[in-house]
Amino acid sequence: MKSAIVLLSGGIDSSTCLAIAKDMGFGIFAMSFAYGQRHGVELKSAQNMASEFGVKEHRIVHIDLAAFGGSSLTSPVMDVPKNRTGHDMSSNIPNTYVPARNTIFLSFALGWAEILSCRDIFTGVNALDYSGYPDCRPEYIKAFETMANLATKAQVEGNRLTIHTPLINLTKAQIISRGESLGVDFSLTHSCYDPAPDGGACGECDSCIIRKKGFESAGIPDATRYTAKHQ
Amino acid sequence: MKSAIVLLSGGIDSSTCLAIAKDMGFGIFAMSFAYGQRHGVELKSAQNMASEFGVKEHRIVHIDLAAFGGSSLTSPVMDVPKNRTGHDMSSNIPNTYVPARNTIFLSFALGWAEILSCRDIFTGVNALDYSGYPDCRPEYIKAFETMANLATKAQVEGNRLTIHTPLINLTKAQIISRGESLGVDFSLTHSCYDPAPDGGACGECDSCIIRKKGFESAGIPDATRYTAKHQ
Repeated sequence: MKSAIVLLSGGIDSSTCLAIAKDMGFGIFAMSFAYGQRHGVELKSAQNMASEFGVKEHRIVHIDLAAFGGSSLTSPVMDVPKNRTGHDMSSNIPNTYVPARNTIFLSFALGWAEILSCRDIFTGVNALDYSGYPDCRPEYIKAFETMANLATKAQVEGNRLTIHTPLINLTKAQIISRGESLGVDFSLTHSCYDPAPDGGACGECDSCIIRKKGFESAGIPDATRYTAKHQ
Repeated sequence: MKSAIVLLSGGIDSSTCLAIAKDMGFGIFAMSFAYGQRHGVELKSAQNMASEFGVKEHRIVHIDLAAFGGSSLTSPVMDVPKNRTGHDMSSNIPNTYVPARNTIFLSFALGWAEILSCRDIFTGVNALDYSGYPDCRPEYIKAFETMANLATKAQVEGNRLTIHTPLINLTKAQIISRGESLGVDFSLTHSCYDPAPDGGACGECDSCIIRKKGFESAGIPDATRYTAKHQ
């Protein structure tokens, strides 16, 4: 069985991406990051999802992106923006953007891939229903793949690496439908950037808004528990 | 004053690279990594060098590359190869190679650069007198730069990032001569991959061999203290 590394945050996209990789017949090595995110509760979702899909191994890598600051996702003193409109989301990169996050995550995956002699890395980035992050664009992923294929001993020896982005051109509703057809239990996933201490979702951050719209458009009920923390 | 990030391991190359960046008029933000390397003593050299050159800030980022294994530099159970010949060094990638190391280091530098609004990153990689690591080649660096310029918000806003590799085409002797002319105190640097508990160099690993030859060729005395640990 061929192995693949799947970057797994515990949200809708990475969980669906995991299901797709599994459906393609890969043995899964899942990788998550404790990077100082205020929604660290997502790691519990990642663990549950990894367990549901019977991954071969799940690694949680600890890195301190909060030490650099610059993002409301890792800073206790910056506020996560709330109730942004679709126009805001498509035209402005918000302060939830974490500098170089996907590049750092994919770089760790690249290192692990080489050690596992694995040529396939999956990431659930998508370029449609997202918050305008530059490191979710197809041209970025393509450039990372090109770089990765010059970076490692494995590639020097002729083992070409592929970065798979099966969701990159799907809407959130399409992702949810795809995930459901593959047996993803979305009640286990977490999306909110700014959860209440009990893990409940705020319902107002970009991630909650995109999630809610996605389930509505897909015509699938969402079991997310929204709390009134910020009201 | 324009700022630059300099990746600083505490060896000959990164110290000379730091001196070059300083000489070019940059304000320096130095970045080192505690990554589980058996020659962690190099971080002391990095601190001393950062202090000598009056950097604006020196960050030591903790990441656990040892957890992945696959390299004698991070594994207590793999031996660092000794007394390799020049032919071995140019034709075989040794087990001191750490998967994706430069990619991970440069990715963290990319994140910090964005937070500092800094457009210049320096790395002391060189493609001549080295151990055949794929992530020291010019084509790799070029590909990383291309990727980096698609990865971040800063670049979306038009601030192009440059990865400077001033040593990439220099021999070790040329690097040492250049460093000396810029005031680098090489007695503060550390090269050995497998130092004795007292920090003394083994004299037999690739890094020691390349260092010794470099000083000889440059006609400059080397203050390195070689101990008999492995004899």
